[in-house]
Amino acid sequence: MEDLGRAGDITTDALIPADLHATGLFVARQPGTIAGMGLARLAFALVDPRVVLTITAADGTPVRPGDAVARLEGPARGILTGERVALNFLGHLSGIATATASIAGAIAHTRTHIVCTRKTTPGLRVVEKYAVRCGGGMNHRFGLDDAILIKDNHIAIAGGIAPALERARAHAGHLVKIELEVDTLAQLDQALALGVDAVLLDNMTLEDLRTAVTMVAGRAVTEASGRINLETAPAIAETGVDLISAGWLTHSAAVLDIGLDISA
Amino acid sequence: MEDLGRAGDITTDALIPADLHATGLFVARQPGTIAGMGLARLAFALVDPRVVLTITAADGTPVRPGDAVARLEGPARGILTGERVALNFLGHLSGIATATASIAGAIAHTRTHIVCTRKTTPGLRVVEKYAVRCGGGMNHRFGLDDAILIKDNHIAIAGGIAPALERARAHAGHLVKIELEVDTLAQLDQALALGVDAVLLDNMTLEDLRTAVTMVAGRAVTEASGRINLETAPAIAETGVDLISAGWLTHSAAVLDIGLDISA
Amino acid sequence: MEDLGRAGDITTDALIPADLHATGLFVARQPGTIAGMGLARLAFALVDPRVVLTITAADGTPVRPGDAVARLEGPARGILTGERVALNFLGHLSGIATATASIAGAIAHTRTHIVCTRKTTPGLRVVEKYAVRCGGGMNHRFGLDDAILIKDNHIAIAGGIAPALERARAHAGHLVKIELEVDTLAQLDQALALGVDAVLLDNMTLEDLRTAVTMVAGRAVTEASGRINLETAPAIAETGVDLISAGWLTHSAAVLDIGLDISA
Amino acid sequence: MEDLGRAGDITTDALIPADLHATGLFVARQPGTIAGMGLARLAFALVDPRVVLTITAADGTPVRPGDAVARLEGPARGILTGERVALNFLGHLSGIATATASIAGAIAHTRTHIVCTRKTTPGLRVVEKYAVRCGGGMNHRFGLDDAILIKDNHIAIAGGIAPALERARAHAGHLVKIELEVDTLAQLDQALALGVDAVLLDNMTLEDLRTAVTMVAGRAVTEASGRINLETAPAIAETGVDLISAGWLTHSAAVLDIGLDISA
Amino acid sequence: MEDLGRAGDITTDALIPADLHATGLFVARQPGTIAGMGLARLAFALVDPRVVLTITAADGTPVRPGDAVARLEGPARGILTGERVALNFLGHLSGIATATASIAGAIAHTRTHIVCTRKTTPGLRVVEKYAVRCGGGMNHRFGLDDAILIKDNHIAIAGGIAPALERARAHAGHLVKIELEVDTLAQLDQALALGVDAVLLDNMTLEDLRTAVTMVAGRAVTEASGRINLETAPAIAETGVDLISAGWLTHSAAVLDIGLDISA
Amino acid sequence: MEDLGRAGDITTDALIPADLHATGLFVARQPGTIAGMGLARLAFALVDPRVVLTITAADGTPVRPGDAVARLEGPARGILTGERVALNFLGHLSGIATATASIAGAIAHTRTHIVCTRKTTPGLRVVEKYAVRCGGGMNHRFGLDDAILIKDNHIAIAGGIAPALERARAHAGHLVKIELEVDTLAQLDQALALGVDAVLLDNMTLEDLRTAVTMVAGRAVTEASGRINLETAPAIAETGVDLISAGWLTHSAAVLDIGLDISA
Repeated sequence: MEDLGRAGDITTDALIPADLHATGLFVARQPGTIAGMGLARLAFALVDPRVVLTITAADGTPVRPGDAVARLEGPARGILTGERVALNFLGHLSGIATATASIAGAIAHTRTHIVCTRKTTPGLRVVEKYAVRCGGGMNHRFGLDDAILIKDNHIAIAGGIAPALERARAHAGHLVKIELEVDTLAQLDQALALGVDAVLLDNMTLEDLRTAVTMVAGRAVTEASGRINLETAPAIAETGVDLISAGWLTHSAAVLDIGLDISA
Repeated sequence: MEDLGRAGDITTDALIPADLHATGLFVARQPGTIAGMGLARLAFALVDPRVVLTITAADGTPVRPGDAVARLEGPARGILTGERVALNFLGHLSGIATATASIAGAIAHTRTHIVCTRKTTPGLRVVEKYAVRCGGGMNHRFGLDDAILIKDNHIAIAGGIAPALERARAHAGHLVKIELEVDTLAQLDQALALGVDAVLLDNMTLEDLRTAVTMVAGRAVTEASGRINLETAPAIAETGVDLISAGWLTHSAAVLDIGLDISA
Repeated sequence: MEDLGRAGDITTDALIPADLHATGLFVARQPGTIAGMGLARLAFALVDPRVVLTITAADGTPVRPGDAVARLEGPARGILTGERVALNFLGHLSGIATATASIAGAIAHTRTHIVCTRKTTPGLRVVEKYAVRCGGGMNHRFGLDDAILIKDNHIAIAGGIAPALERARAHAGHLVKIELEVDTLAQLDQALALGVDAVLLDNMTLEDLRTAVTMVAGRAVTEASGRINLETAPAIAETGVDLISAGWLTHSAAVLDIGLDISA
Repeated sequence: MEDLGRAGDITTDALIPADLHATGLFVARQPGTIAGMGLARLAFALVDPRVVLTITAADGTPVRPGDAVARLEGPARGILTGERVALNFLGHLSGIATATASIAGAIAHTRTHIVCTRKTTPGLRVVEKYAVRCGGGMNHRFGLDDAILIKDNHIAIAGGIAPALERARAHAGHLVKIELEVDTLAQLDQALALGVDAVLLDNMTLEDLRTAVTMVAGRAVTEASGRINLETAPAIAETGVDLISAGWLTHSAAVLDIGLDISA
Repeated sequence: MEDLGRAGDITTDALIPADLHATGLFVARQPGTIAGMGLARLAFALVDPRVVLTITAADGTPVRPGDAVARLEGPARGILTGERVALNFLGHLSGIATATASIAGAIAHTRTHIVCTRKTTPGLRVVEKYAVRCGGGMNHRFGLDDAILIKDNHIAIAGGIAPALERARAHAGHLVKIELEVDTLAQLDQALALGVDAVLLDNMTLEDLRTAVTMVAGRAVTEASGRINLETAPAIAETGVDLISAGWLTHSAAVLDIGLDISA
Repeated sequence: MEDLGRAGDITTDALIPADLHATGLFVARQPGTIAGMGLARLAFALVDPRVVLTITAADGTPVRPGDAVARLEGPARGILTGERVALNFLGHLSGIATATASIAGAIAHTRTHIVCTRKTTPGLRVVEKYAVRCGGGMNHRFGLDDAILIKDNHIAIAGGIAPALERARAHAGHLVKIELEVDTLAQLDQALALGVDAVLLDNMTLEDLRTAVTMVAGRAVTEASGRINLETAPAIAETGVDLISAGWLTHSAAVLDIGLDISA
């Protein structure tokens, strides 16, 4: 609806005969990892269900420039009218999968996993989280109701780590985990004494991260965040943290360039 | 709804007293241009209408790191619960405005304008187009029904520029403009002979763009596209084209980093 | 939903056996032009997808009293329950197509086209505009965002034709056309001097229309409006205007009387 | 949404200053009866809640050409942008009220009432039925679930009046009335012997209607339908039937012409 | 959506292979009457359309503990994920049908019918009324617009039975019935003198009910309400009232216990 | 909408003057615990925002027969029209709160908590879970995506407890807890050896429950389910389990009887 408006695709309707059959290829113009084929297919199903999309690179597949990722067959009008929406989904989600896969590759020599955050594009959280998984990443909370994550602002207002953790434990259902953000090793020490399921080690030095992992000693999941990118990720992962998390995977990844080659 | 789920913000509900009043500041962590204050305010209105957001940097305003862009006042719970959705909108749209403003600045010495395309994030087209305007850019078509834009695939299927333009003119309502994509000066020559409202000069060399502007001589709007970025934009604009268009403004701009400082 | 309410078609459910098969004919009771078969079919698809509607007079077809326009086959209950909604759509849209076709026929000896306006029934604009096309007419703007149409109230508030056109041109995207309403030849003269894409000649005498066409001399599209009906249309078209527009096509056309003949 | 599309009222936004205040009058251009003020007010509330609509001719009021029916005050942009949707509602519903009032006036010397049918514009049934009441008419069924109305097609399929009535009575809830369509006095005789709440006397001659009223003798409500218009209504009402019903009140009434006079 | 949330059935997705085929049986754990098979099937259709539900105990069928009521076949994941929603519908509606059937059975030796009220679970009225019919009951009003039911509060405010009935009759359409609640025989006497379609005899003694039935003598439908349960229903029905009504059928019936036996 | 239908409250509209002001009291007819005041207020806000509902017994308050729980003031029409929907919500949710409070009271001498399940009324899960909290209970999962709960069917298909737990752990995000249903002490032993966050002890004898609590020794949360009611709950709680869970709190609790006393 967003693309068709009230009058529909007036260019295609004017130029392309209604009964013309065509075939098309979605072709990667860049190296990357594919995600979003289901939504691309849905876009065509809504525009013209006679357009058949055959997937040649399923979600999660790495591609090189020139690789065909899907084949289209059906009315030329439907292919041309649905193209942009399909590619907007496919490019956006493949961009996220590609960014995730690049980090995942860079830390593959460690046991650390890359996870995304709640910094997602409004309206697209569920599919963006899916794209992260296609790229080999894992998901953090899907929303505010999934688990308790106590951040610096919460601690400050609650009056410290101890009262914060106490209230969290009193209110949490028996299937709800509690994670706590700590900025210093002193805070970590306090958190471990009180007991938590996971700790978010925010913006710590590599040395502090190493110490933190040693202090935790398996008693909680360790997650490092802050300034995660292709250059910094390997060293951070090598500190032994369980997870590294990065908001930009979902909010700032560039689209993967995919184009349509059509022939009637 | 996307962020609150069924059980709501269980962290804030557990830790923060219901009657605690707080004030907060949204602070830019990077230089950029603001867009999306209306949606940030809407996010809080939906979470808790008692949270008052006072804008200190209106949409379109350039900001420096450390600048407060909005002030929040109201129940601490509402501020903490609405924060992420508000910042997801504000960061995404300010990122687009910032990218647009950087290009607009780079070509400010010319009469050329920067315009966005239909390569937008699904579901957010209208607000992303608005963010482009906040950054000093102009908008291309909002959808397939706004105007006729004949691209290479259309020309190929229609059997050439002449039959394509002929059919377009026969079907176009009297208030519908026609733009044609041309890849070569020979195509441009043909298009001008037949008459069009605008020409999309795709991936031409600077020299060809200069020649094209001379050939058109004001008879049509000229739009250059392909490989537009901060480095290439000035020279392209100096060829004299009316418009340069770039999809990445809306599909690949990184978010503008904005954070919340809160005190209860 | 509007017709079935909560309890459904209690008459049919009480009287007609669930397994009774029937055939029906939609028969025109008046001469006219058909539009709305797609929505008639949709009405049955929503009520009972086993009812098969076979179109015998496609949209745009002229019919005479007694002509069968569609054949129905399926469960008698579904046919009887869906009848009214299907006929409400079919009658309403065929009424618009019929009114349009009558005007189109009356001006067929000229090069003038009949166009509809934004005076449509709330909620039905897109399908009413489609019905106008079925009757041989053309469409004006689908909404306020399609093109700039400067009317008398705009001119008055903007302070005259010159400032109105100037502001319009400054704000219009490169694919947006500008039409201006003029009530006098003096205004037309001013508009032509400033340049516009189209002029709306409102309520002018035949003589003034003829003069206007001469003055315009192909530099803009000419559209005559006001008091267009079967009697006045031929003479107005003979003045040489490109378009005549009439709101009553969509807001006041009487339904085309179509009935259901059923046999079980 | 239908009128604003994605880009909004680009004419008004370009030409009219955002802070310009204006007043306007909705003025009747024809004699008629008003209906739809609530929806007109809603249209402005959705476009710009600062536009205040003061009703000077409430729903149900008869008006003459030149009468102001409502006064508008607020931002000029909001008044101009909301005008068309407000008038589309007001004109459509006032047209129905006007048609109803003309029939109601023509039969005011009798005890007969005019009622509308289910032949309404899709999506607008509830408000069209309201407009009929504004014009002094009464409403028939709102939908298929309101009451049992056995028509000729039902009788034919059910195998006659007796089995039809029998099944209807067996299935009807204790608060559901039963009306039966009869085309002849013989059918009426049969219906009265079996007992019904109301009879629909379809397309009977005046003489048959008079006989029917005598036969019924108050044992059922009598409703005459078929070819009801301003010329035929008085004589039909004078036969003594309780109700006359006409589908065209809601499906074919012409809009009442109402215009906007604005001054800034 | 209510059950799947954002991340879906994470247990089943983790444990059950995507390609595992399974069969399951919905088995009654209690004696009762079935209702809601259509919604159970819909639940699976929404979760995974490949799951085929074959009904072995159609709506309205009495079942004993151990009876299979439906057979499921398809992907194990779909069966496990859709189970709870399907059973929530099936159990709730079968509970209502079972409660209704128990009362219907207890009064089967009389000519009295059991009817439900508007005291339904918000959002589920239409399907709960259907479940009552599956259990052998009849439906009262579906909503406030179905018929006029004048209750004690209406009478008190209207100033008595006479003005209440008078106003009701003046406003009621010709297909709208009127029922009146009476608490005493004196009120009943008054109501009968004025004429009503039905009387609601609220909380009367058995003796008063018997007298009321004699007084009414077929001139109105008689409905007894108040304290209807399995013990009281037979004696109340034996007073000769046409209907007995009970809100708890729809608002307080316990679910019928139905479980899933699955094998892969 | 469900209650008003298309024509609205025709009884109240006919009988009660539009300008009549009234006051009303919602009065408990039974002892219980209140829940649902917010939805009761919403019902009136949707029907007529001028009706003011003043809460005298907030959600979670125990009430006795005769206690006023809310006071209504405003147009008599609005009070009468909104009454049923408001009471349907209030009665349903208070019924759940009352049932929960009765169990919570019966086990108050222990450290055990009562929790609800996913066996809720379709469409009302979130508010029913809230009602449980009003009654002093706690909530289990809100949906299938909240946590991993491995039931007997999952174990059977996965091939045993060990592979089931292994797969669960491999797929679970770092903030997702895992609960396992065990029917025997042998299964419990196996589960504890492998490690789980919680165990669901289904239908165990009191003796087995006691042994299970000893075996677990604080290493996991213990939840007992099956045949929980007012009689069995105390003894089950006294075994030392952390939680007892019961589906009937949400799917089979009878409404709390609350009535409206109105005076105009």
